[in-house]
Amino acid sequence: MNPTIHIEAGCLDNAGAIARQFVGGALAAIVSDDTVFSRYGSRLEASLKAAGWDVVRFVFPHGEAQKNLATYGELLSFLAEQHLTRTDVIFALGGGVTGDLAGFAAATYLRGVGLVQIPTSLLACVDSSVGGKTAVDLPQGKNLAGAFYPPHCVVIDPALTHSLPEETFRDGMAEVIKYAATLDGSLYEAIDHLPQTLEEVISRCVALKDQVVAEDLRDNGLRQLLNFGHTFGHAIEKQADYTLGHGACVAMGMAIMARACAAKGLCSPACRDRLLRTLTAWKLPTKTAFAPETLFLHLLSDKKRRGQKLTLVVLRETGRAELTPVLLEEALDFLKTGWEA
Amino acid sequence: MNPTIHIEAGCLDNAGAIARQFVGGALAAIVSDDTVFSRYGSRLEASLKAAGWDVVRFVFPHGEAQKNLATYGELLSFLAEQHLTRTDVIFALGGGVTGDLAGFAAATYLRGVGLVQIPTSLLACVDSSVGGKTAVDLPQGKNLAGAFYPPHCVVIDPALTHSLPEETFRDGMAEVIKYAATLDGSLYEAIDHLPQTLEEVISRCVALKDQVVAEDLRDNGLRQLLNFGHTFGHAIEKQADYTLGHGACVAMGMAIMARACAAKGLCSPACRDRLLRTLTAWKLPTKTAFAPETLFLHLLSDKKRRGQKLTLVVLRETGRAELTPVLLEEALDFLKTGWEA
Repeated sequence: MNPTIHIEAGCLDNAGAIARQFVGGALAAIVSDDTVFSRYGSRLEASLKAAGWDVVRFVFPHGEAQKNLATYGELLSFLAEQHLTRTDVIFALGGGVTGDLAGFAAATYLRGVGLVQIPTSLLACVDSSVGGKTAVDLPQGKNLAGAFYPPHCVVIDPALTHSLPEETFRDGMAEVIKYAATLDGSLYEAIDHLPQTLEEVISRCVALKDQVVAEDLRDNGLRQLLNFGHTFGHAIEKQADYTLGHGACVAMGMAIMARACAAKGLCSPACRDRLLRTLTAWKLPTKTAFAPETLFLHLLSDKKRRGQKLTLVVLRETGRAELTPVLLEEALDFLKTGWEA
Repeated sequence: MNPTIHIEAGCLDNAGAIARQFVGGALAAIVSDDTVFSRYGSRLEASLKAAGWDVVRFVFPHGEAQKNLATYGELLSFLAEQHLTRTDVIFALGGGVTGDLAGFAAATYLRGVGLVQIPTSLLACVDSSVGGKTAVDLPQGKNLAGAFYPPHCVVIDPALTHSLPEETFRDGMAEVIKYAATLDGSLYEAIDHLPQTLEEVISRCVALKDQVVAEDLRDNGLRQLLNFGHTFGHAIEKQADYTLGHGACVAMGMAIMARACAAKGLCSPACRDRLLRTLTAWKLPTKTAFAPETLFLHLLSDKKRRGQKLTLVVLRETGRAELTPVLLEEALDFLKTGWEA
């Protein structure tokens, strides 16, 4: 695996020394939300000071609603007021919202400064902290403004995810299950034996993502496999006005797609059922009440739309998916078929 | 020169066909300020339609004050509402403000869409349209948020710069003179024969910039030569609360530096005088009333500061400059010496 990714239970207390191998600078700016900072902030701060950084902190109210241009602007102004320079470093301590927001700020403040991701949620560990996608939401949709900016270092302490509310942990499980469904069927077994296998599961997911991203940073090919369940999932998320968890929406999106693929003979019923069974075991939803025609309207503003075409991630067998460019009306047909099945 | 840069008098009317060689898409979003759009917008629009694009336009009030996160946010929302996709294209029609703002939006909307720069001011022609630096200002300083994002195509019509107010043209001349001072002494002669040599001067400046940028997109070495006069110039610009032209401030910054270099024996008096004479011939200022100690405070928030060091661009002879990393107190000494001389 990429040497800049460090995974080890309890390593939060050593994050400063680990990061020092990859980033320099005199000033470290911790970016975190109030909930996460109150839980882990002082441990990270102590570790950064021990590694020789002066530490400042930008703590914002928790919640997806904060991942917007207003908070981004406040963060940039904070960095400017602290006179952070190009060789200094931003430490993103938190879940996906923090990682995306702090990552976008790191990508654009002075056109790029040091960035270390320290994910604290399962979702952030296996998904958003690795791979360099950063973004904020616009009123018109999720992640519509952002940059590709791989972190200089990722420090993953699997122990941190234990302290999460069960619902938040489940949210991350949707992405874990996605890796099993699309890239590595044998991962389903490790998932069945959680929580004993937590460090193994995180390591395997990160390695899969890292491998995919190494081949396709800018999301033009292979990396789009990681969007399995996300095209419809984002539509559900948006229709619900972001009141549902990201993982729950991705779970519904994957379930719709799996049922559509089985109905169209693209994958076997067994492949579909393995996915649905695992989602259900983790109490993740597999059905949505929103009508396909309603959800379809959101596909029009999907980032991944190219003119009149969308690339769908289609399930072929357990652990293998395929990219299929389709016309918008075919995407609607997948949505209807999977919704009704 | 880079094949994506097209320079030809009158080529605005052919901009669509020229750009079509480098960018695809079905939708073209023209970004322009009210002054420029009223003058050139319809010609560009006709040319883009003839090249097969649907055209939408985002026209904002002119002026540097608009180069901020608020206008950036409005532009992003506009693009989202128009359902612009990743294969579509933003056409930045205007001066440096428009190019920087539209470029940053193109770099970050959907994490990157097509970008064509059509500079209409001399400054934008020879400087900001080429090289991929995009940015907006923060309340704390100029260009503090941005991205490196080279345009897919640059269409330069030197005829457009004729219609500028004399002061705006002079503003661009400061950057032209910078190229002569730091990279090509023989350019001074072509400058002396303006306006007859306008197309030649623009072409030579663009070629010089393109060459420097090709070797150093991310501004870690050679490209910093282009910052000649800018470190002190930005400080003056900021102290004047952006009420002075960028070119005028750069002119003062170059003059301070030239006098300091001659005083310190780094360049000859003749080298200094050639620069000062040319600036004066173009009615550009060479002295500032702001005290060195006052200006120095702004160096602390300079993007180019790295810890306690700054890299100064030092004049060695006519057409040759050198990068010199100095401690902050040495930078103050340069400022004082050049100010008093």
